[in-house]
Amino acid sequence: MELFYFQYFRDGTGHLGPEESNHCVRVLRHREGDLIDVIDGKGTLLHCRILRADPKDTVVELVSSEENWEARPYRLTMAVCPTKNNDRFEWFVEKATEVGVDRIVPVIGDRSERKVYKTERAERIALSAAKQSLKALIPDIEEPRTVRSFIGECDAACKLIACCFEDETCPRTSIREALAGATDIAVLIGPEGDFSPEEVQLAISKGFRPVHLGASRLRTETAALTAVEAVYFEFI
Amino acid sequence: MELFYFQYFRDGTGHLGPEESNHCVRVLRHREGDLIDVIDGKGTLLHCRILRADPKDTVVELVSSEENWEARPYRLTMAVCPTKNNDRFEWFVEKATEVGVDRIVPVIGDRSERKVYKTERAERIALSAAKQSLKALIPDIEEPRTVRSFIGECDAACKLIACCFEDETCPRTSIREALAGATDIAVLIGPEGDFSPEEVQLAISKGFRPVHLGASRLRTETAALTAVEAVYFEFI
Repeated sequence: MELFYFQYFRDGTGHLGPEESNHCVRVLRHREGDLIDVIDGKGTLLHCRILRADPKDTVVELVSSEENWEARPYRLTMAVCPTKNNDRFEWFVEKATEVGVDRIVPVIGDRSERKVYKTERAERIALSAAKQSLKALIPDIEEPRTVRSFIGECDAACKLIACCFEDETCPRTSIREALAGATDIAVLIGPEGDFSPEEVQLAISKGFRPVHLGASRLRTETAALTAVEAVYFEFI
Repeated sequence: MELFYFQYFRDGTGHLGPEESNHCVRVLRHREGDLIDVIDGKGTLLHCRILRADPKDTVVELVSSEENWEARPYRLTMAVCPTKNNDRFEWFVEKATEVGVDRIVPVIGDRSERKVYKTERAERIALSAAKQSLKALIPDIEEPRTVRSFIGECDAACKLIACCFEDETCPRTSIREALAGATDIAVLIGPEGDFSPEEVQLAISKGFRPVHLGASRLRTETAALTAVEAVYFEFI
């Protein structure tokens, strides 16, 4: 099965755009009249027929569609501090998309060494990972914001903060225990230097539960994927 | 905490070897008399005092040691078909070492595109990942063999084969169900083109249970890490 992603779809007709058109017509040699599967990136799979097989602008018509195609039984937001090494964060974006995530929010913590993050590359990685793993929903890669502003705005039913330290002000439970029964989940993952105590206290005051990810000491991007896997395993 | 790895240790005296010695003396500026922590790679943490701070050959004496330092409550062998793209397999080696694995066996399946695999780079990656994630046990990266020979020799108490197809000859259970209560575990992960039906039937005849890793379609290296995470989560 091969999935395409369209640039826009209106009145039952869609345009694949230059990159997808080239892949469809030049690489996979699809021709006028061929049936192809297209995702809208929002969770709908569209079965389409090619009206014009143009490597620069392939046009398709809608034959039928399936909303919430292979939808997950949960909604997951991952707010993760970008790593110093950009490749590691982009690796997380690819793997989290394969396993299953709805939103990825790059957040900047008090102790983050990386204070700026550009989302363009991560968006392309999420798109290709979604297509490769046959998902109709492409995770939103949102604009970066501070850890504090994410804490203030997050409205998930189950809000978790994975912090490396534990004391009487911050009693941690295992992420599996904290996830029991949750379906609308947000997990906050800190930078290499961990969250500041003030960030953790703010999170707790806003209803976040401090959690640990087990005994292994994990890099930021490994911790973030481990949290995605923890949620995934609650539903398999 | 900083961990070093020694080249050899005999009669209470150890040599760090050129690479570790340089890191210890030139980079971290340790001097004679300093106390450092050294791993033997087999699970023992050794507290040592530097006798000679030589960037080419630093010599240490044993002060005290802790066997089975932060040992995991399980033993995990991952037999994984190397990916076409070597970086993806090496990424798996790094992440599996961080999360926790005892043996990694590169295996060649009937449908493997990659028929040869050199272990040197993976061994270095496992060493640095073990040190970075503060583990005294470095996973063994074994010499490649065929999937069939691994199936024949594997003596783990819980033997699982993660295959992508399912039919009446191969009824799959979820990996979490199959792992319940297991502590001596081996998981077999196939190549991009999956196992051949003959390999799966051979595995079943040798006591392997066919398992699935949930609804997501995962790349080989993502499936392999997801299996490592599944085992990890059984114990947190």
